[in-house]
Amino acid sequence: MTHTPRRSPATPADAGRSRPVGVETESGIARIAVDLLGGDEAPAVVVDGALRAVCDDPDLHLLLVGPTRAAGALIDALDPAQRDRITVRPTHSVVEMADDPSAARAETTVRAAVAAVRAGYADAVVSAGSTGATVTAAALGLGRWPDVRRPALAAALPAVSGTVVLLDVGGSLEPNPATLARHAALGAAYAAVAHGVAAPRVGLLSVGTEAGKGDRARRLTDPVLSAAALPGEARYVGLVEGYDVCLGTRADVVVTDGFTGNVLLKAVEGAYAMAGGTPPGGGAPRAAALLGVAGTVVVCHGAARADDIASGIALAARLWRRDATERVAALLAENRTDRTTDTEVRTS
Amino acid sequence: MTHTPRRSPATPADAGRSRPVGVETESGIARIAVDLLGGDEAPAVVVDGALRAVCDDPDLHLLLVGPTRAAGALIDALDPAQRDRITVRPTHSVVEMADDPSAARAETTVRAAVAAVRAGYADAVVSAGSTGATVTAAALGLGRWPDVRRPALAAALPAVSGTVVLLDVGGSLEPNPATLARHAALGAAYAAVAHGVAAPRVGLLSVGTEAGKGDRARRLTDPVLSAAALPGEARYVGLVEGYDVCLGTRADVVVTDGFTGNVLLKAVEGAYAMAGGTPPGGGAPRAAALLGVAGTVVVCHGAARADDIASGIALAARLWRRDATERVAALLAENRTDRTTDTEVRTS
Repeated sequence: MTHTPRRSPATPADAGRSRPVGVETESGIARIAVDLLGGDEAPAVVVDGALRAVCDDPDLHLLLVGPTRAAGALIDALDPAQRDRITVRPTHSVVEMADDPSAARAETTVRAAVAAVRAGYADAVVSAGSTGATVTAAALGLGRWPDVRRPALAAALPAVSGTVVLLDVGGSLEPNPATLARHAALGAAYAAVAHGVAAPRVGLLSVGTEAGKGDRARRLTDPVLSAAALPGEARYVGLVEGYDVCLGTRADVVVTDGFTGNVLLKAVEGAYAMAGGTPPGGGAPRAAALLGVAGTVVVCHGAARADDIASGIALAARLWRRDATERVAALLAENRTDRTTDTEVRTS
Repeated sequence: MTHTPRRSPATPADAGRSRPVGVETESGIARIAVDLLGGDEAPAVVVDGALRAVCDDPDLHLLLVGPTRAAGALIDALDPAQRDRITVRPTHSVVEMADDPSAARAETTVRAAVAAVRAGYADAVVSAGSTGATVTAAALGLGRWPDVRRPALAAALPAVSGTVVLLDVGGSLEPNPATLARHAALGAAYAAVAHGVAAPRVGLLSVGTEAGKGDRARRLTDPVLSAAALPGEARYVGLVEGYDVCLGTRADVVVTDGFTGNVLLKAVEGAYAMAGGTPPGGGAPRAAALLGVAGTVVVCHGAARADDIASGIALAARLWRRDATERVAALLAENRTDRTTDTEVRTS
């Protein structure tokens, strides 16, 4: 089953309405804007990764955002039929292959990629550039959801039992308890929509499971999460520990600050290297979904290799085909309604 | 080669003087005080672990601190020759096997174990009880080293390249930059003494390696570490990332706050479970050395199994036989002298 290309919403106010909620497809054309200059070894690895993604997925269309020379290298490597699935949005002429793709220039390409989604030329953005620049570009260009001040990066880790959504993995290094509670809701809705977890169990990462364990931030956040209404059938299961991120027995969603989440995700990747390679169930992801903005945005690791870029593009396509962003937004909107009721009941 | 039993220093003021610095032995009698009531499944797993340790090491003597009934179970399982290596220090009569080993009671046993070291009846303490209670008992009972306000728990992780000392893994959840710098010095001296690293490379755990990466605590600590004089040939290599804890290619010592260190250590343990078991080079340790107190203290994971307890006892014996505590103290004392000189040079 294939779809004709769709236009994304033109303004943030329209976001979340371009498809009826609940429609779920795993196929169909997905048009992904790829930031050619994002990442430590851009554009070379991004070109390689994009090439793999195009070859792997016959319904994938790419909008390459960056220097025409880099885009040309990719196009030359494709056969004529595949080339029809590539569009190029050249960045302004000062950025060339010979130039060093500095942070400022990469920010230009990620902003252009976000603008392309906003204008309806692509369905999702993938960048391996600076996380901060991508988050800022997405928040400004696509808009944030109601009640979301700080978008979160969510990584899905294959675990001994199921999949664990870990967030934040680097978007917001020092969140306050309200932000962590908001991220818990985002992560729960994402686990339900993107990973099909019927009633996600949400845990707060700490150094022990007994109430009161942890630093000041955890001690303040635990009661806030206990009192929070989570979307759908999600429930807060209390404090969890480092093991739980790879075991999945106690929680489907593990919430933490972006500093801890980032070092933990990379420590797991290091542990797999020490253990001799990626486990059969899958390794630590190098692509994360940005939650809380009105669009589909995937952030790849700055040190992404070509297969990481290809995975990031595949993730963006899968999220788009599942209507993940809109369905997560819808779950959160329902939850806001519920929460108002809860508050009224509680104050009586 | 064996030694006759030695007396530990009777007072904190005497600590660090019971053996000439530089003497290194891997054998000899080691007398370890074991807290029978520390740990989630104490005394059963502690008794099992102590039994394994005694059978594994013919030069190991144990001072069992706790209920006589639990100690009796261990003694009954030994043959008569082995029994000569066991001493019991009964806790007061209200603590019995039938009683629930609550935190308050376990604190009593760890205090008694520390007191036994201080009085010269044992060379080192091992407890799987509350980390906070053990740190407090050790700091009060044995004394802290000069300039150490908060002792650190150091875990040694087998890595792809060598061994990485990670600290703190739970002693001090919210250290300030001065404490992190002190822990860097403790970790460097420990890596040199306990793991024979000639010129330890010390890294500060963060979310990227470029200067300025990280949360406020890291941004404040990085310049403090850059300016700090580290003991011996140790040097600060700047920011490192989560991978580095299991890779060991960039740093031999990774410094972080106790919250992050604790969740990271447990995440690595979870990753090894996901990867199918302990890597050939060794898994995530469940015993950590307490650095900064004038004595040899090993803290085992609260959820320690019998083999974790046995590993903790073996670690304590190894540290004692290497004179680790005294040699670390001596390296730090040299460093204090050097640092004064450095300051004078810098102000000129």
